[in-house]
Amino acid sequence: MKIGFSQEIKTWDRGQVQVRTDRLAEEAPMELIIDHCDGQHWHRQNIAVTMRTPGEDSALALGFLFTETVIQSHADVDRVEERLDTSRPRVIVRLKDGVRVDLQKLTRHVFTNSSCGVCSQASLDQVQKLCPIKPEMSVTVDPDQLLGLPRTMRDAQKEFGQTGGLHASGLFQTDGRLLLLSEDVGRHNALDKLIGKAMRQGRLPLRDTILLLSGRASFELIQKAALAGIPFVAALGAPSSLASTLADTMGMTLVGFLRETSFNIYCGSQRVLLRS
Amino acid sequence: MKIGFSQEIKTWDRGQVQVRTDRLAEEAPMELIIDHCDGQHWHRQNIAVTMRTPGEDSALALGFLFTETVIQSHADVDRVEERLDTSRPRVIVRLKDGVRVDLQKLTRHVFTNSSCGVCSQASLDQVQKLCPIKPEMSVTVDPDQLLGLPRTMRDAQKEFGQTGGLHASGLFQTDGRLLLLSEDVGRHNALDKLIGKAMRQGRLPLRDTILLLSGRASFELIQKAALAGIPFVAALGAPSSLASTLADTMGMTLVGFLRETSFNIYCGSQRVLLRS
Repeated sequence: MKIGFSQEIKTWDRGQVQVRTDRLAEEAPMELIIDHCDGQHWHRQNIAVTMRTPGEDSALALGFLFTETVIQSHADVDRVEERLDTSRPRVIVRLKDGVRVDLQKLTRHVFTNSSCGVCSQASLDQVQKLCPIKPEMSVTVDPDQLLGLPRTMRDAQKEFGQTGGLHASGLFQTDGRLLLLSEDVGRHNALDKLIGKAMRQGRLPLRDTILLLSGRASFELIQKAALAGIPFVAALGAPSSLASTLADTMGMTLVGFLRETSFNIYCGSQRVLLRS
Repeated sequence: MKIGFSQEIKTWDRGQVQVRTDRLAEEAPMELIIDHCDGQHWHRQNIAVTMRTPGEDSALALGFLFTETVIQSHADVDRVEERLDTSRPRVIVRLKDGVRVDLQKLTRHVFTNSSCGVCSQASLDQVQKLCPIKPEMSVTVDPDQLLGLPRTMRDAQKEFGQTGGLHASGLFQTDGRLLLLSEDVGRHNALDKLIGKAMRQGRLPLRDTILLLSGRASFELIQKAALAGIPFVAALGAPSSLASTLADTMGMTLVGFLRETSFNIYCGSQRVLLRS
């Protein structure tokens, strides 16, 4: 299991393969808890678990509570306690005695936050438990096929109109043929749409396929791909640390920074037909 | 109030101002509801409200339920009903009689989804109600100052190490001086961190400031900025339709596609010192 920022990767550039150490943006779960008093009793309430880059965690907690309108100002806060060096990193915000929290409002707010990037209680182990599918090792992809996928996806996107503001998820055969495409302002929605369409067509689990993501690869996108049985994920952008760890744990292949003539392999390089 | 894709914008390119019609990625709320039977009684449960690009909404609902492990396969689904042409667009998924839903698990899942892009029950009106601050009209920004902000932010980011996978939020004075910067794998976290720091410093509301977003501008990012009192938001990427509508409704200025020599103004152009 890799922890933190640095990881050994393979780079492929015009047929040349190199091994080097890469620095990944860290992604890790943090729990946000508030202590508040209803006038008589103090209550401890789990507000959210968010996937974030560690650092400035108290500020994240305060900003979240403010923009969710749980607190009106810093004066509502008694103290903030960080408990980060544990297996369950958390920030506990104790509100002042007179500050009432409308749990009803909060619950609705929490309910409104979905399908967009966080699934942190589900540890890596839990993902494995939920995921009945072992990715097939037999899938192999030629680098030249891989380099052609972004153009195929862009050409297909053009039919639906490009605004510069849409994320896309594309599902490909290993020979480069586009099977399914979905677009959305939310990258997690785009992937959910694609998986929903595949499910309706009776295609799950999606063995022998490549998933192309128009942006970065987060933990939750890899988790969704794993649940759908996709063995090979390629992203135009960077993967997070936890995305890479999960893909490795699940035995998947993860490619990032897929450009016109180059890409990085973060794990599962046995599925890429490397010649040098 | 603008609805849908097309909107009149001002473009600024090397000092030349033009008015043209722009096409924005559509962002709109959709509610996901399931009907399920606990063995004796049928229950209707609101699962999530997500901000999505309309289209393929049944697929989105199915994919979401599958990747949240509420359903195991399409065989768990009796029927899917779209009710989209209403003021409350929703998809209702009726599960088969024998399919049990673990609400406890679901609640935890829902609780784990936070701070990442959705706040849809909060209608535009509700945002206005929650937001005590009227943006000041006196803030004016010189285009040349605006063009310089991305470089200032990138230079500051370098100090914290660039992985290509981090989003940034930067808060600037109107003379271009960087006041605060935060980075995170999640763009909503980056902004929450920034607002949390500003709150601790007693800076809220953030009048007379410009917020620079490293990526696209979504509804929720504009909502957070509005709550913090920021009158001027500039994004390197595209705004969504609902982000633009909200910024306009709140009397804010929204700039998108901020490049080295050009940008688009979606609303509030009176705060940009246009010369032609």
